[in-house]
Amino acid sequence: VSDPVNLHDFCARARDTLGESACAYLDGGASDEITLRENEAAFQRRRLRPRVLRDVTDIDTTTRLLGAAVAMPIGVAPTAYNALFHPDAEPAVARAAAHRDVMYVASTNSSCSMETIAKAEGPRWFQLYAQEDDAVTGALIRRAEAAGYGALVVTVDTAAPARRERDTRLSDSDTRAAQGNAAPGQWLEAAAPFLTWELIGRVRDSTSLPLVLKGIMTGEDAALAVEHGAAAVWVSNHGGRQLDRAPATLEVLEEVVAAVGGGAEVYVDGGVRRGADAIIAVALGARAVFVGRPVLYALACGGEQGVRDALRILDEELRNAMALLGVRSVGDISRECVV
Amino acid sequence: VSDPVNLHDFCARARDTLGESACAYLDGGASDEITLRENEAAFQRRRLRPRVLRDVTDIDTTTRLLGAAVAMPIGVAPTAYNALFHPDAEPAVARAAAHRDVMYVASTNSSCSMETIAKAEGPRWFQLYAQEDDAVTGALIRRAEAAGYGALVVTVDTAAPARRERDTRLSDSDTRAAQGNAAPGQWLEAAAPFLTWELIGRVRDSTSLPLVLKGIMTGEDAALAVEHGAAAVWVSNHGGRQLDRAPATLEVLEEVVAAVGGGAEVYVDGGVRRGADAIIAVALGARAVFVGRPVLYALACGGEQGVRDALRILDEELRNAMALLGVRSVGDISRECVV
Amino acid sequence: VSDPVNLHDFCARARDTLGESACAYLDGGASDEITLRENEAAFQRRRLRPRVLRDVTDIDTTTRLLGAAVAMPIGVAPTAYNALFHPDAEPAVARAAAHRDVMYVASTNSSCSMETIAKAEGPRWFQLYAQEDDAVTGALIRRAEAAGYGALVVTVDTAAPARRERDTRLSDSDTRAAQGNAAPGQWLEAAAPFLTWELIGRVRDSTSLPLVLKGIMTGEDAALAVEHGAAAVWVSNHGGRQLDRAPATLEVLEEVVAAVGGGAEVYVDGGVRRGADAIIAVALGARAVFVGRPVLYALACGGEQGVRDALRILDEELRNAMALLGVRSVGDISRECVV
Amino acid sequence: VSDPVNLHDFCARARDTLGESACAYLDGGASDEITLRENEAAFQRRRLRPRVLRDVTDIDTTTRLLGAAVAMPIGVAPTAYNALFHPDAEPAVARAAAHRDVMYVASTNSSCSMETIAKAEGPRWFQLYAQEDDAVTGALIRRAEAAGYGALVVTVDTAAPARRERDTRLSDSDTRAAQGNAAPGQWLEAAAPFLTWELIGRVRDSTSLPLVLKGIMTGEDAALAVEHGAAAVWVSNHGGRQLDRAPATLEVLEEVVAAVGGGAEVYVDGGVRRGADAIIAVALGARAVFVGRPVLYALACGGEQGVRDALRILDEELRNAMALLGVRSVGDISRECVV
Repeated sequence: VSDPVNLHDFCARARDTLGESACAYLDGGASDEITLRENEAAFQRRRLRPRVLRDVTDIDTTTRLLGAAVAMPIGVAPTAYNALFHPDAEPAVARAAAHRDVMYVASTNSSCSMETIAKAEGPRWFQLYAQEDDAVTGALIRRAEAAGYGALVVTVDTAAPARRERDTRLSDSDTRAAQGNAAPGQWLEAAAPFLTWELIGRVRDSTSLPLVLKGIMTGEDAALAVEHGAAAVWVSNHGGRQLDRAPATLEVLEEVVAAVGGGAEVYVDGGVRRGADAIIAVALGARAVFVGRPVLYALACGGEQGVRDALRILDEELRNAMALLGVRSVGDISRECVV
Repeated sequence: VSDPVNLHDFCARARDTLGESACAYLDGGASDEITLRENEAAFQRRRLRPRVLRDVTDIDTTTRLLGAAVAMPIGVAPTAYNALFHPDAEPAVARAAAHRDVMYVASTNSSCSMETIAKAEGPRWFQLYAQEDDAVTGALIRRAEAAGYGALVVTVDTAAPARRERDTRLSDSDTRAAQGNAAPGQWLEAAAPFLTWELIGRVRDSTSLPLVLKGIMTGEDAALAVEHGAAAVWVSNHGGRQLDRAPATLEVLEEVVAAVGGGAEVYVDGGVRRGADAIIAVALGARAVFVGRPVLYALACGGEQGVRDALRILDEELRNAMALLGVRSVGDISRECVV
Repeated sequence: VSDPVNLHDFCARARDTLGESACAYLDGGASDEITLRENEAAFQRRRLRPRVLRDVTDIDTTTRLLGAAVAMPIGVAPTAYNALFHPDAEPAVARAAAHRDVMYVASTNSSCSMETIAKAEGPRWFQLYAQEDDAVTGALIRRAEAAGYGALVVTVDTAAPARRERDTRLSDSDTRAAQGNAAPGQWLEAAAPFLTWELIGRVRDSTSLPLVLKGIMTGEDAALAVEHGAAAVWVSNHGGRQLDRAPATLEVLEEVVAAVGGGAEVYVDGGVRRGADAIIAVALGARAVFVGRPVLYALACGGEQGVRDALRILDEELRNAMALLGVRSVGDISRECVV
Repeated sequence: VSDPVNLHDFCARARDTLGESACAYLDGGASDEITLRENEAAFQRRRLRPRVLRDVTDIDTTTRLLGAAVAMPIGVAPTAYNALFHPDAEPAVARAAAHRDVMYVASTNSSCSMETIAKAEGPRWFQLYAQEDDAVTGALIRRAEAAGYGALVVTVDTAAPARRERDTRLSDSDTRAAQGNAAPGQWLEAAAPFLTWELIGRVRDSTSLPLVLKGIMTGEDAALAVEHGAAAVWVSNHGGRQLDRAPATLEVLEEVVAAVGGGAEVYVDGGVRRGADAIIAVALGARAVFVGRPVLYALACGGEQGVRDALRILDEELRNAMALLGVRSVGDISRECVV
């Protein structure tokens, strides 16, 4: 078996390594998994318009996310319970991200504490499941501030528990026990029917960290996010893991970008598998894309080195596609690049 | 084998239980089964637009159908010969529906009498194959009134016998014999080339029960239905079992809703397999959806308990999707929810 | 094995009976067979709009084709070398057509003489491959007139020999030998690069029979046909057997109907497999459809009785679909019937 | 096994002959091979509008490419390392092309020298990978002029090395070694991030040969090409071998033709497999199409005779489709021929 040459390879190899329930948890989406499949398909339907005869000797993939310098407009999305996939868990992923200078977003429900993760010392944000009790949420925010996390990414698309049928079929008690063991750092209930714009306002007022709202899928909510002081809007359907039949994230990106109107940065996750996907999203107005599942497949395959390899491949693909597209820097990627 | 987690599971399990001809009768549609397949596909093509940060702690799925309070906008469609699938037949289905407070529509060609079915004491309507002889029809209507059925659902899409080729191939004499045995309560010929708006008018004038016309597929006929005093228009292509090449019901729903213009309630059946399907239909103007085949698969799997489980799953899916969509009540579901 | 219930059944059964090269000749189309497949697919994409509550006790499928009364708007298309498929050949097909009072079109390259075929005494037209030498063509026309054929159907889409690769692969010398033996009645070269509107004019002037031009696929040529005195325009791509990449016939029907503007009757063949297909074509402006391959499959299966069965099934399907569509006669089928 | 009847046949047969890595190199495209597949699919989606009753006894397929008379608007695209596929390599292909009087484009990275190839004495152009050092490029141009090449085809879509994963998986060191051995005539690095319009200007000024820019995929670049003195614009995505997600070439042809506005000839390659494909491209404004992979499959199958056969089949298909389409000459092929 040769080395992985693309992100799909990590997925195929991880399947040989992981147990059935870890695979089900990682691969699966909600209900019929229509949204899960559509996320990838939406990227594959788009076409890039290559421009030629521009000097692309030097390709600059760097960008800034809420002011933080990163090596490329591709970051690591927050994912829970990484110890399910490799004993080195989140710290390995965070170190790989730091090594490549890409944004890492630590999940509330990580398998180890956010302080341990922060030791990687790379660009980092903290994903927060805001709770009804401000004190609980506040304590977590204080820890995030102290650990050097540069923004709070509040997940807003978990108003109800997910219906992931693959997990249910595999007597998910096993998985949940494993997850319980795997999250000693901190753990908060994700399902939050009580979450409101008012509560988001309280979070915003409780910290000087910029606020990112993750899970916005409509122009209406994007406009409300800006109105409520969000520094960034993160287009996400939770990787097809919450509401099945939600549109592919790429399909709503332009609607969100238009509604935001420059009032906040826009990110997108879901279905990103290639460097070219990042270009497509940036061309449609995103400031960055985030990658979730592929990073965990890479973690399962080779720990920190696996994730380093995955991020290197994304970087190589991105540079290659930018050169063939005739764009020298992220700022050169415009709407005209995409059909 | 774990418990069924969705309605497809009942179908898969029922296939192990049922004989070949019962399966053919239940699964099959007319001719090439294009309409049969399109019914489901039309729902799966639609996308839901999730709104976030609305308090969805309390989800209210209740609604009223022609004034009758029901637990959710999903009812049990009329289906014939239930004894083909389980010895407890229609009464088991009716009891399960009553247990969950959902509308049950008893078929003329039930395997036992409408009076027996009515003992379930839930919200119930009676489906009628109107006959040329008013006396025959009238006698049935009197019985339905006496047995507490709250509306007459007159089927209008059976002007000719169905051409279901799966049945024909399996020497359908067997099936028909079984059906004959299975329908001791009452039985009327479904094929009714003589049925006209004038005859519908006679039915309407013969009872104080509200009239539902089931099998409307065009705006023109929907407008005529209102004009002729129908209290509700039921969009149906008989589950793809009558005219193959008819459109998917969901594809014509908006045309029908526009033509009705608020003058009657609108229902739809055909292809409903998920709670989310009900939301899609309601968003496009339906007051409720009805489910046929999946209920019979559930009946075949586990009698009354099977149907209870199926209805519980639909309820759970509906609540989950409403919460993730940011709608608290059926009345909150609007056109903006659906792409 | 039960009796055939639809036209596809004849095809499946004929494959068991026929030799490989007869199958290749009958099944195949030109080049990649894109047009062959599209012909059927185009019909299957269309949807019918059923109207309800109209008295359809009496369904009248009769129509007139160039004045000739026929039992339904579905006729038998001309096909060559029927002896390849059954020893009773064209006379058996013609007798079956006469038995059901449907239009039969005899091919120039029949396996027996047009006079023998005419003994069936049903409604009949003669398909003509017009030749460069007017004397040859004229002699054939005189025979057709004498044998009671009611129209000349001149094929105009064979300017070059077909490139049917299935035949070529099977050492088509065998097939051609068989075809040579099979066509003792008359035989004329189909490929006619020399054919022009001027030559068509000479044919028209040489007979009092009405002229049908078969193989028109554009509005421009349809208008020219009317201008040159054609009584009918027959939309055909030769069953996908001549120019691959030609559109499905149904896809160009409306363009042709519009160009003809009532100045001639319009027929269509290619992909008709169901009674409903005839309704779709008539709704879009055709006066009739013609069926080729399925008739030969039926001939292969059961000789005259096989073709009678196929025509009976088409009649039953047509009546059934008309009833379920709410149309009592062919004249009632209008543009509103089809989406 | 019968003789090949179409270009796909050569591909199927070559797979039996070639080793795994030669197959991977020839068959493969970049990344997910989306663009590779789309190139063929785009041609197959188009439909031709056949016109009838025009005298097509004499079909003239000849045309002129930058003034050079050729037998048909289908040429041989430049391809590298032909010795990987057959020991007779490029000279065999060039002789076959000369035999049929079609344009042959010799690759810079041929397995033997351009002077050897030129001995075939047919219509020929030279494909050039322009280098940073004008002296290197200039020396090659002088040789091309001396060897009678009629135009310089400068490839402009290789700003970065290709990411062809099939090759990478097969330890491409083997392939590259073979390629090194296979290219004794001349060899230049294809990847050229430094290539600019300015450098193209220097090439143009250094020779009296007309300049063709190969690898243009946008109207913007096509307009720039004309502005910079290109005699022809060649629409190409390098056979799906450079930027995956680039559109199918046929999909951008009309945009390029419009931008060129008659100021240069336009060619297209990628996905051409049938004579009808050439007609489609010409109808949309191309002056010619070029064929790459199929020629190499044919070379692998039968050396010079294999390529002769492939070109003969294309010629036969082209003549056949022109006749059935009712066009006598290449100049008769117009926009109305294609849907």
